[in-house]
Amino acid sequence: MPKLVDCIPNFSEGRDQKVVEALADCARSVPGVSLLDYSMDASHNRSVFTLVGSPEGMEEAAFLLCKKASELIDMTKHTGEHPRMGATDVIPFVPVKDMTMDECVEISKRVGERIAKELNIPVILYEASASSSDRSNLAAVRKGQFEGMPEKLTKAKWKPDFGECKIHPTAGVVAVGARMPLVAFNVNLSTSDVAIADKIAKKVRGSSGGLQFVKGMGVYLEERKIAQVSMNLVNYEKTSIYTVFELIKAEAKRWGVNIIGSELIGLAPSKALIDCAEYYLQIEDFDFNKQVLENHLL
Amino acid sequence: MPKLVDCIPNFSEGRDQKVVEALADCARSVPGVSLLDYSMDASHNRSVFTLVGSPEGMEEAAFLLCKKASELIDMTKHTGEHPRMGATDVIPFVPVKDMTMDECVEISKRVGERIAKELNIPVILYEASASSSDRSNLAAVRKGQFEGMPEKLTKAKWKPDFGECKIHPTAGVVAVGARMPLVAFNVNLSTSDVAIADKIAKKVRGSSGGLQFVKGMGVYLEERKIAQVSMNLVNYEKTSIYTVFELIKAEAKRWGVNIIGSELIGLAPSKALIDCAEYYLQIEDFDFNKQVLENHLL
Repeated sequence: MPKLVDCIPNFSEGRDQKVVEALADCARSVPGVSLLDYSMDASHNRSVFTLVGSPEGMEEAAFLLCKKASELIDMTKHTGEHPRMGATDVIPFVPVKDMTMDECVEISKRVGERIAKELNIPVILYEASASSSDRSNLAAVRKGQFEGMPEKLTKAKWKPDFGECKIHPTAGVVAVGARMPLVAFNVNLSTSDVAIADKIAKKVRGSSGGLQFVKGMGVYLEERKIAQVSMNLVNYEKTSIYTVFELIKAEAKRWGVNIIGSELIGLAPSKALIDCAEYYLQIEDFDFNKQVLENHLL
Repeated sequence: MPKLVDCIPNFSEGRDQKVVEALADCARSVPGVSLLDYSMDASHNRSVFTLVGSPEGMEEAAFLLCKKASELIDMTKHTGEHPRMGATDVIPFVPVKDMTMDECVEISKRVGERIAKELNIPVILYEASASSSDRSNLAAVRKGQFEGMPEKLTKAKWKPDFGECKIHPTAGVVAVGARMPLVAFNVNLSTSDVAIADKIAKKVRGSSGGLQFVKGMGVYLEERKIAQVSMNLVNYEKTSIYTVFELIKAEAKRWGVNIIGSELIGLAPSKALIDCAEYYLQIEDFDFNKQVLENHLL
């Protein structure tokens, strides 16, 4: 059973197809690594790559991609809606199979050190790799964005974990870290009133007293004229999808609102979904590793 | 993406560990094939092997196992609770990945032909491979068991698909075929009255007007003093686990009975479970192949 790690680097280029294809070719060139998916967003001017592979291969791929992005992307000319601070903006490593979070933290530290040393790009470790609790949240790390980084890095609180206290002139700063797989899950409501979706999101998300590993907000879906609770589940093993779903259902009742559907955005690990089947079917003594056929094939 | 096929041969030996280990060693010796699981049942005097691998490897493994079993097991001395007609009793091939049922039928026919030709054991094709509708049901094929086979095979209706109209003196007859993955799923009830479980099973199973691809009966669990609806779901893509579960829940209400739990026996394909998550979470436009991380890794 080989170890498998996921890596989802985000690059600050979502308009120039040639640049993104060059990054994709770079990812495909690394032995032991598969490029599962990559998507460009023009308004965000950002692309998101999903890679899976061996720990050694992924370490190499993450470095090579960061190097290639630093050659092709000039942050002094970058505009886009999404917050960003570097040509390679963020490199998260995610344990997939037979990997611990600690092993992913070790990978992130080695990659971060190498990026700083060989590419001269300062690195801040975040999430499970963070060197202080201030740094675990990516939004806090990135606050001020590329333009604010030269000043931010001179503050003791934001001294990079690797590299000097000044940005790379065109590639900026990169956040590197280890985290749990993230499940993007949205619940659609039988109302067009986004205030209700907002109230439900507040009850459900961890930051306002709800479920620890849920981030969420209410949004209005213009084309469908419905309100939605839009969420990221940042630890589906500790806060399951079904728990979130059932809590939203219960909160929605308060407003006479029903769930009319849900959306799973992008990829999810099979366990995140099979945990839900186990709950709803009331399966006793279920053993995910042994009883799911595919787990014997990986 | 390599093709993958499952094979679950059943052997008429569940007491002599040495014989079963010799069969396991034989399975492990075939390149391209993995032995996922094997279990012995002493009262049934039977063992069940679960193999997965390439179509070519599996074809070879199934033949070699049948050969080895014919050398080690003497049906004239076999006793046990489970119905049986051969040293290798049944060899089902199941499509797992990038395989059609037709491809599995072809494999079963080639293996059957080779068994008859090289081992002199008559072969009856069953399930999707059956040469007539009478032969699709394994229970009908096996009726009369080892002891009744010499006479049965002389009848035109039961002429073997491959080999002569007489049994192998010690290895009997073997059924070879292709079928869908089978999900063994039991639902536990809040009653000790097995008559209620029986009535529910009757409403739920295909043979008495229920769901097409469900076989089932009521059983009493002595240790727990509860009744159970015990089932085989023979096509989980057409009759889903959640459909069965919800129908049992509805029928149980009629008797004031609740579902207190369920059991999944052995292995199930991830899709059988994830289909349930999709239903209960009301996920819109879910794409199993694209959105489940592991499906990109196989």
